[in-house]
Amino acid sequence: MNRSVIARVIGLILCIEALCMVPSFAIALFTHGADSHAFAVSIALCGGVGGLLTRIKSKSKRFQTRDGFVAVALCWIVMGLTGALPYALSGYSYVDAVFETVSGFTTTGATIVSAPSALPQGLQFWRALTQWMGGMGVLVMVLALMPSLGEGSVNLMKAESPGPISSKLRPKTSETAKSLYIIYIALTAAETLMLRVAGMPLFDSLTTAFTTISTGGFSVRDESIAYYHSEPIVWIIIVFMFVSGINFGVLFQAQRRAWKDALRSEELRWYTVITVGAVALIAVDLVLKTGLGVYQGVSQSAFQVVTLMTTTGYATADFDLWPYFSKLILVLVMFIGGCAGSTAGGVKVSRLVILFKGLKRELRRILHTREVRPLTLEGERVAEGTVSSVSVFFFAYIVILLVCAAVVSLDEVDFTTAFTAALTTISNVGPGFVLVGPTCNFGFLSSLSKIVLTITMLLGRLEIMPLLVLLFPSVWKK
Amino acid sequence: MNRSVIARVIGLILCIEALCMVPSFAIALFTHGADSHAFAVSIALCGGVGGLLTRIKSKSKRFQTRDGFVAVALCWIVMGLTGALPYALSGYSYVDAVFETVSGFTTTGATIVSAPSALPQGLQFWRALTQWMGGMGVLVMVLALMPSLGEGSVNLMKAESPGPISSKLRPKTSETAKSLYIIYIALTAAETLMLRVAGMPLFDSLTTAFTTISTGGFSVRDESIAYYHSEPIVWIIIVFMFVSGINFGVLFQAQRRAWKDALRSEELRWYTVITVGAVALIAVDLVLKTGLGVYQGVSQSAFQVVTLMTTTGYATADFDLWPYFSKLILVLVMFIGGCAGSTAGGVKVSRLVILFKGLKRELRRILHTREVRPLTLEGERVAEGTVSSVSVFFFAYIVILLVCAAVVSLDEVDFTTAFTAALTTISNVGPGFVLVGPTCNFGFLSSLSKIVLTITMLLGRLEIMPLLVLLFPSVWKK
Repeated sequence: MNRSVIARVIGLILCIEALCMVPSFAIALFTHGADSHAFAVSIALCGGVGGLLTRIKSKSKRFQTRDGFVAVALCWIVMGLTGALPYALSGYSYVDAVFETVSGFTTTGATIVSAPSALPQGLQFWRALTQWMGGMGVLVMVLALMPSLGEGSVNLMKAESPGPISSKLRPKTSETAKSLYIIYIALTAAETLMLRVAGMPLFDSLTTAFTTISTGGFSVRDESIAYYHSEPIVWIIIVFMFVSGINFGVLFQAQRRAWKDALRSEELRWYTVITVGAVALIAVDLVLKTGLGVYQGVSQSAFQVVTLMTTTGYATADFDLWPYFSKLILVLVMFIGGCAGSTAGGVKVSRLVILFKGLKRELRRILHTREVRPLTLEGERVAEGTVSSVSVFFFAYIVILLVCAAVVSLDEVDFTTAFTAALTTISNVGPGFVLVGPTCNFGFLSSLSKIVLTITMLLGRLEIMPLLVLLFPSVWKK
Repeated sequence: MNRSVIARVIGLILCIEALCMVPSFAIALFTHGADSHAFAVSIALCGGVGGLLTRIKSKSKRFQTRDGFVAVALCWIVMGLTGALPYALSGYSYVDAVFETVSGFTTTGATIVSAPSALPQGLQFWRALTQWMGGMGVLVMVLALMPSLGEGSVNLMKAESPGPISSKLRPKTSETAKSLYIIYIALTAAETLMLRVAGMPLFDSLTTAFTTISTGGFSVRDESIAYYHSEPIVWIIIVFMFVSGINFGVLFQAQRRAWKDALRSEELRWYTVITVGAVALIAVDLVLKTGLGVYQGVSQSAFQVVTLMTTTGYATADFDLWPYFSKLILVLVMFIGGCAGSTAGGVKVSRLVILFKGLKRELRRILHTREVRPLTLEGERVAEGTVSSVSVFFFAYIVILLVCAAVVSLDEVDFTTAFTAALTTISNVGPGFVLVGPTCNFGFLSSLSKIVLTITMLLGRLEIMPLLVLLFPSVWKK
């Protein structure tokens, strides 16, 4: 284990975090908010400790896969614990503060704040910004800003980026990271502009863009997107959520006008088919059973399907009141999630495609005993190691989901609440059903549940393995 | 595809079915039941068609893996459709009749009969006997009775026996089948005797033994086992359910007094640990939250955990009224199921052990990049093909569970009802929660739901692949 490099990376992360708190601090000062003190202290602490850590000299340049996994896991834990300072210093309990921060960084959007609009604006901005920072990945940001890590950078990228196969867009990792952030920033700017034009206040536009493009789902309004009562705003957000759920590799091709390549993406095709299918099923169910008009049915269905499938988690309607079939489809899309290499959570479309192909291959093997064909995805052969990693991931996902639900049920909440609370956190969505439904929040849960759900959010965002690696004693031995 | 042999096997199955209906017919005659006519017609039909099919001459002796899978799938479908005749001819709708029959053969125990005690005794006996026939497998019975199939027999056995690895107890398949049935009959006889001694009427003792050893769960009493108000009976049934959930290979060793080998079984160890752990958790939860005494808490917890984990599904208490944490643990054990090579359903303990070891191996691979160690189970190396089959099975299990729940939710039943109805059928348990809880039945569901749940029961019992193979067009082509 290369401890000195890991310590330096953590130091860098702390410095970036301190830097990212500066705008919130400025807003707090400008609005004479009660939170300016909290931000001043937080910036000093993070910046100070971070600065010291970055001065550690590394003896060795060797930075292996496991170093990458351990560094990413530790960085995210540290980010959660320190990013919580502004909340904690503003009067929230530390458990609640860490829950809210990790929910931010992991782009989950589950909240313990009952009325976000009542928060001081500095905290509102920090809350939205944590999602934007976590969406593309904070370590990816480090790589984009300072490409000095050498070969280690690939391993950091591998551990932080979601999806079964990490693709390099450009030969150098730092260039890939830069390209990703350019697309990310461009999308955020475009959405801010369009929302502003559609009549949203500037502060709302910017924070909403932060939480859309990162598929986070925090809102500065208590009623979430329903507050704005605007169909254009709803559709703008639908489009940007959908785009943010696409593999950024595909967006990179699109940006380079390699449209053919972009549209040929197998994962994009399935992502679109599943989205359209789910929207259609729910729209029909809503129109038939609730007496909603066709346009309203399609619009509400489209918003909720896209917001839950991309694991954003905004609300325009209380979908907890929808027919049971619609709700079950929503649970399914929460489980599926967006594309690999996007900011969305969930199991990811490409993993499910690989698993379905694995099932088909197994059946073929029974029918034609001798034949063992390799799996392909996007026209390329998938290594058997990847197929097995995907299977293991799927299994771990289900186990964590069930264990987390069991712990939450200790709070004597019903099965649906416990199960969807676990699902919405591991898939980084935000709202669940019943007691954690779109009009409720997670504040009423016990500290034990909050801590377990916080860990589950991290497991979901980092795709399980980096955190589980920390459980091995050999990681901690000299 | 060797069609002639498959047709002959189906013919044999029909003949055996007709033969198995004879005792019920006798009981119907003896009790002057209204069902004697139904059994007479059913026996004539099954026996007649079966007799004709067995006369088909096979051109080739070649009987491959796929022939085994297809034969098993078709046999079970035919058994469900024809075994339903006695119910259908007694006035039940055909959909209900097939549901009840398949629930019997697959040892699920979900029922559409609101008051089993009101059924004529002939039907009561048939209902219990279907579970006993399905428990060890009807094709295994064929193999035990007439070992003429040659090499094909292995493939039939492979396709019908549950578990990731099918082990041969004795060199010849027919001998293995015989050994299995000897243990099966001995256990049934022992339980019948003990229940009789404990004060249960003879008819109840025999039918209860049929449905315990097969981990089926049908009861001739409306209140299930709670009817007898007897602690000795409860504990006798707990022990026999637990034993029936053990791999029959292990029971075979025990029967040969190879105790050391039997007790060394890794799967048995985990099966015991999970059972004891779940009983303890629920007992504590019950005692703390419901004010039940310690003995009552342990006894009720033990009965429900063992009956649901072995996927039997009797009831002594309305566990739907238990605290939510206890209910969630019950859902987990329904999902886990018993050991491979037992009569129990569920994912099976050995599969989960393999999956957990796969997860551990994946983490090791991240920590020590080069190392790829093979998995072991019961001290033997597990082939990579088996590991991948297990992963595929797990994925298919979850997908079927979710799709089935979605269809059931079209009946506008709540999430818990839909989800546990799907789980209880794919795991071949019997009762679920809320509207399909232990005091309810499946009669109120729509025909669509009943048909889908019937298919799900078959998928669960045959461990998915044999039925999915039928979906390939190449199976049906000449």
